[in-house]
Amino acid sequence: MDYEALREGLGNVIRSERYRRGIRSQEGLAHAAGLHPAYVGSVERGERNVSLQNLVRIAGALGMPLSELIAEAEEAAELRKG
Amino acid sequence: MDYEALREGLGNVIRSERYRRGIRSQEGLAHAAGLHPAYVGSVERGERNVSLQNLVRIAGALGMPLSELIAEAEEAAELRKG
Repeated sequence: MDYEALREGLGNVIRSERYRRGIRSQEGLAHAAGLHPAYVGSVERGERNVSLQNLVRIAGALGMPLSELIAEAEEAAELRKG
Repeated sequence: MDYEALREGLGNVIRSERYRRGIRSQEGLAHAAGLHPAYVGSVERGERNVSLQNLVRIAGALGMPLSELIAEAEEAAELRKG
């Protein structure tokens, strides 16, 4: 799995899962995760080499297992590849 | 999911998956993943807040999807919690 594709897939999946839960703003997710809104923004844009701890925080704020978030990101990365 | 429990579970899972593949040494896995052996050692001991990029490298060296590695780590963390 290509890291950059996964990083971008992860950002897209986090954004779509956030909307699915009715969390309209990056601020809302950031608050629930205990992270800075600007940081969450850069994660959603696929710009960050997120650490395990912050991945756990984001998955927790979305109420889903991290493994599921990563599985969806892998799928998104595969689809994008073509 | 508790981050520290997951970090420890992940280290244990990486070590057991490495052995399962007949990679006897941390050096062997480090070489395959393009990481420093001492770094792989600290990851296996659950001491590191591993980044997404290094998680991708380790999963790739073990020949398994990252989502599967994380799912196994979640299971190990749950079991440990009792």
